[in-house]
Amino acid sequence: MNIYSKTYESNEQLGSQMHQLIAKLYPICRSITGDGVRKSLYILKQYIPLEIYEVPTGTPVFDWTVPKEWNVRDAYVKNSRGEKVIDFQKSNLHVLNYSIPIQKKMSLTELKEHLFSMSDRPDWIPYRTSYYNENWGFCLTHRQLQELEEGEYEVYIDSSLEAGHLTCGEYFLQGETDEEILFSCHICHPSLCNDNLSGISLATFLAKHLSSLSLRYSYRFLFVPGTIGSITWLSLNESKVARIKHGLVVAGVGDSGKLTYKKSRRDNAEIDRVVTHVLKHSGDEYAIDDFSPYGYDERQYCSPGFNLPVGSLTRTPFGRYPEYHTSADNLEFVKPEYLADSLEKYLAVVDILENNQTYLNTNPKCEPQLGKRGLYGTFGGTQDKKTKEMATLWVLNLSDGSHSLLDISDRSGLEFQVIQDAADALVEGGLLSNK
Amino acid sequence: MNIYSKTYESNEQLGSQMHQLIAKLYPICRSITGDGVRKSLYILKQYIPLEIYEVPTGTPVFDWTVPKEWNVRDAYVKNSRGEKVIDFQKSNLHVLNYSIPIQKKMSLTELKEHLFSMSDRPDWIPYRTSYYNENWGFCLTHRQLQELEEGEYEVYIDSSLEAGHLTCGEYFLQGETDEEILFSCHICHPSLCNDNLSGISLATFLAKHLSSLSLRYSYRFLFVPGTIGSITWLSLNESKVARIKHGLVVAGVGDSGKLTYKKSRRDNAEIDRVVTHVLKHSGDEYAIDDFSPYGYDERQYCSPGFNLPVGSLTRTPFGRYPEYHTSADNLEFVKPEYLADSLEKYLAVVDILENNQTYLNTNPKCEPQLGKRGLYGTFGGTQDKKTKEMATLWVLNLSDGSHSLLDISDRSGLEFQVIQDAADALVEGGLLSNK
Amino acid sequence: MNIYSKTYESNEQLGSQMHQLIAKLYPICRSITGDGVRKSLYILKQYIPLEIYEVPTGTPVFDWTVPKEWNVRDAYVKNSRGEKVIDFQKSNLHVLNYSIPIQKKMSLTELKEHLFSMSDRPDWIPYRTSYYNENWGFCLTHRQLQELEEGEYEVYIDSSLEAGHLTCGEYFLQGETDEEILFSCHICHPSLCNDNLSGISLATFLAKHLSSLSLRYSYRFLFVPGTIGSITWLSLNESKVARIKHGLVVAGVGDSGKLTYKKSRRDNAEIDRVVTHVLKHSGDEYAIDDFSPYGYDERQYCSPGFNLPVGSLTRTPFGRYPEYHTSADNLEFVKPEYLADSLEKYLAVVDILENNQTYLNTNPKCEPQLGKRGLYGTFGGTQDKKTKEMATLWVLNLSDGSHSLLDISDRSGLEFQVIQDAADALVEGGLLSNK
Repeated sequence: MNIYSKTYESNEQLGSQMHQLIAKLYPICRSITGDGVRKSLYILKQYIPLEIYEVPTGTPVFDWTVPKEWNVRDAYVKNSRGEKVIDFQKSNLHVLNYSIPIQKKMSLTELKEHLFSMSDRPDWIPYRTSYYNENWGFCLTHRQLQELEEGEYEVYIDSSLEAGHLTCGEYFLQGETDEEILFSCHICHPSLCNDNLSGISLATFLAKHLSSLSLRYSYRFLFVPGTIGSITWLSLNESKVARIKHGLVVAGVGDSGKLTYKKSRRDNAEIDRVVTHVLKHSGDEYAIDDFSPYGYDERQYCSPGFNLPVGSLTRTPFGRYPEYHTSADNLEFVKPEYLADSLEKYLAVVDILENNQTYLNTNPKCEPQLGKRGLYGTFGGTQDKKTKEMATLWVLNLSDGSHSLLDISDRSGLEFQVIQDAADALVEGGLLSNK
Repeated sequence: MNIYSKTYESNEQLGSQMHQLIAKLYPICRSITGDGVRKSLYILKQYIPLEIYEVPTGTPVFDWTVPKEWNVRDAYVKNSRGEKVIDFQKSNLHVLNYSIPIQKKMSLTELKEHLFSMSDRPDWIPYRTSYYNENWGFCLTHRQLQELEEGEYEVYIDSSLEAGHLTCGEYFLQGETDEEILFSCHICHPSLCNDNLSGISLATFLAKHLSSLSLRYSYRFLFVPGTIGSITWLSLNESKVARIKHGLVVAGVGDSGKLTYKKSRRDNAEIDRVVTHVLKHSGDEYAIDDFSPYGYDERQYCSPGFNLPVGSLTRTPFGRYPEYHTSADNLEFVKPEYLADSLEKYLAVVDILENNQTYLNTNPKCEPQLGKRGLYGTFGGTQDKKTKEMATLWVLNLSDGSHSLLDISDRSGLEFQVIQDAADALVEGGLLSNK
Repeated sequence: MNIYSKTYESNEQLGSQMHQLIAKLYPICRSITGDGVRKSLYILKQYIPLEIYEVPTGTPVFDWTVPKEWNVRDAYVKNSRGEKVIDFQKSNLHVLNYSIPIQKKMSLTELKEHLFSMSDRPDWIPYRTSYYNENWGFCLTHRQLQELEEGEYEVYIDSSLEAGHLTCGEYFLQGETDEEILFSCHICHPSLCNDNLSGISLATFLAKHLSSLSLRYSYRFLFVPGTIGSITWLSLNESKVARIKHGLVVAGVGDSGKLTYKKSRRDNAEIDRVVTHVLKHSGDEYAIDDFSPYGYDERQYCSPGFNLPVGSLTRTPFGRYPEYHTSADNLEFVKPEYLADSLEKYLAVVDILENNQTYLNTNPKCEPQLGKRGLYGTFGGTQDKKTKEMATLWVLNLSDGSHSLLDISDRSGLEFQVIQDAADALVEGGLLSNK
């Protein structure tokens, strides 16, 4: 199995296709429930055979309850001259997500209690929600806010907040074994590109790519609303949880920042070591953050009752870039080359997980005679040859049944691929057997 | 239980009271036995209901024997003109501690073999003892020594060294459980303030303060002569030793140096982690020293046959300040503010030990919905709110039965008090239960 | 037992004798088999009662087979004028080691395919072998190569490659116990001094010295051809392997570089800790390298089926000095003072291994009264006295049956010898017993 058999496209094409998917999803007004989520998942279904399922409002999911479904058709604020000074049609960020319906005239003073802007970023619209407190409101640029004159305003939000469903998407790819690798991304944000159309796009293209391969692990891709979605999935699929051997929360993978890995609660799980290995040997800048119980859906996967080995691989982490949760997280903020680079790192992680076997040296007493098997001194160019010889010796030396190929990579300081190639040649030469 | 309910006095008053007790004890000539110790303990009895007990000379205590009791009434050296050139009445440091009685005339040359001074500190009187070699002698300033003229001198020491007792003080405070925290200080030094009237004063005020509270642990305060006193206590109370769960040797807590913690032989006992936590979060400079078998009575508590989790929390460690064991360790050398600051740190240690519980998250699968319980997004000011939310999430995430609140503090980097407050609120909200 | 009882010679004499042995062995043309090895071992037999044994060609030894025996009597290349332009009699490095016999006339072009030189070191002859590929060739300086004119050359190698034997030397020194310390050096290199006549000389003088002492461990010295020799020994002596408790591969111990220790595969075996302790306290520069499966015969001893605690103590490691495997690794490159210094370090290692006992404090509850036993305050000069007292206290404190003297040295930071002296005095005083 070679994860990197990217025959179907160049990296450049790939990044461009990933960005195109983001562009398709961008205009849709999503929330944790409602038609925006449905429309988005139907678009993904054109890429991968997604299963879409609906969980009714009121369903108890651990300590939570599936909330009412929210939909919004239109929303605006008109001034006394009848001009729309805030208009949902121009940006779905303008409406406070989960706003209850309203149609009312009021003074500027009254209106202002329901307006949200950012004084330090006067041209950006902030993204705000009110899922669990019934409220209404508008988000606008600070410049818009300052231009509002005294007078009477008409406020109109054509939304509904009623019994309905929570909608989730799931794609399961059966592998050779039932052990699973989980990729989970949140799909609840409206017109915000990095957070998290980038994650949705990466998970989709990753799924599509892996579906063409023959794999050892099974793969599960979850496209769920943040928090309530992962809680709902875990609640309804508790019996499957034990199969999850590794996992990543996919988010914020399109900006220009360096790759950042947030470790799982276990701190030294195989996924933690694999991602660290990939980033360390990538030649690019990177950062490793310790686990903390604040963040994306790893909060749920890593809750103490599950403690799954799930980390999160992003570029700049949420909240550490000014565009986060504003209208500036737009189609220009995410770039094809960063999307493709992120996907490449995810593939490298999958590649190591798939190939991280533990072998037994069949000739453990003294070194085997590599020369007579063409495994020594017969490799190509000098530097490359030396590295391959070292990899061969390391694999033989540590394949005592208690070291995986990743253990050997880490102790030797050699890249996983080099170690794996050596192991493959040694298996071929009859000098390694499966544990 | 809130250790910090210091309603009875301000920190300034406290420091001043601690210094006043030192001043009362300062003039008394103490040694490892004798009336000086008794007088000192009777003074402490005015503060706390100390039990005073006497162990007869000759009592075998492990490898040792309780020594003869020493008392001294007067001592001087007169020159040929009958002038007292060294006078015990001016400073009890002038007499070599445990000097046998003598009255004799002799030449300067003969006398000099029994005189001790410090050439590098010509105005200070050194403190010297001869507990286990019968001898006599005088300590004096180097300037005094240099002024001695040739001629005949009269040496007079009115002391007794006879069968008697070793005197110890002990205060036991029964708590909710029989598990004990030990505070031990040595009471054998004469007019030396930091070493160790400061420790005696701190232990007394700590005991007095804790006696007014309702506590989980029982507390034992030992006021014993150095080395032979702790050996005697351990020998006579071996059956109680297993109850000691944590302990500190209290000494050198009044000078202006930074707090210094010497770890127990176990190196990573709970007391070691607690004191480290307190010092790290104190905002003050501090030092942590590894255990070594040289020092105060931790030498006995940490001997291999006991290996108790007993460290020593001092300011500048013994021997690292020039005033150590000289007449310059006087009432000016120890200051009320440092005494009060040291006591505050001891109280902070007690506070964490008392509250370092291990809880169980009652809702371990996924996060509980904090919002509906008023535990999220409802705290005060922004920074404070964020810290409290993080503390809440950390406590929930790590309360799996294998992490104490201190473990959670250390992993999260948050101060113990913040973690404890979050835990208290979660217990109240029904989201944590006792393990 | 005092390893350092070097009554028979000064360090200077010792280095000079070590160098003289190297000089005797230098002219001999050794290989992995053949008369050169035999001659060399017979010389060593004048120093120590070496057992020399012969293993027939074709003997299977694990994955290998004992090769044909190679001998060479003469070899040269003559130009068309009959002048010897390359002459084995001038340096045995000139012939490719294990060259098959040849006598043939050929053009310069054809000849050049069998010539080896170093363009970056134009005055040095490289050392090359072809043990497992039948081939012939000559090594020469790059200057020689460049001076060769077009024309016909006569190539002559009077060698034989036939069924015969592999020759090894072994010296076993029975100690008080059957537990062994192994010293292994490779003897297969021709006229190269540091690699490894230096190791042969050190092992010989170490063996000679230890044979005069009464020792706790048994000692085994192996003088074997690299790789095939250690494989052969391990294969034929598998039942003895479990007795090897510590070991060092002895090589490259005569150059001016700093001592370098390459750790065993176990990484923290007693030998690893002992050598580290010796180097750390030596006052000299040193380096510690992690284990890697490339190097000398530790490759075989540390193969996973044996995983012996065998490291390698050299000066500059192989391959890291330009003279390595060239004619510049000559009698000037190794110096008596470095040889003697290396031997001294080996002796220090043996000394700690011999004395690294674990004792029990017979008086574990509280400190024993050292004063009454003359073990406290009765040592010599001030600094020395303080160190001895500390060593005494550390030994008593940690002699609980789970700390060896080396553990105590490492935790206290005190040199092993100081700790051992304290332990000896405490055993004498009845305060320590054997575990």
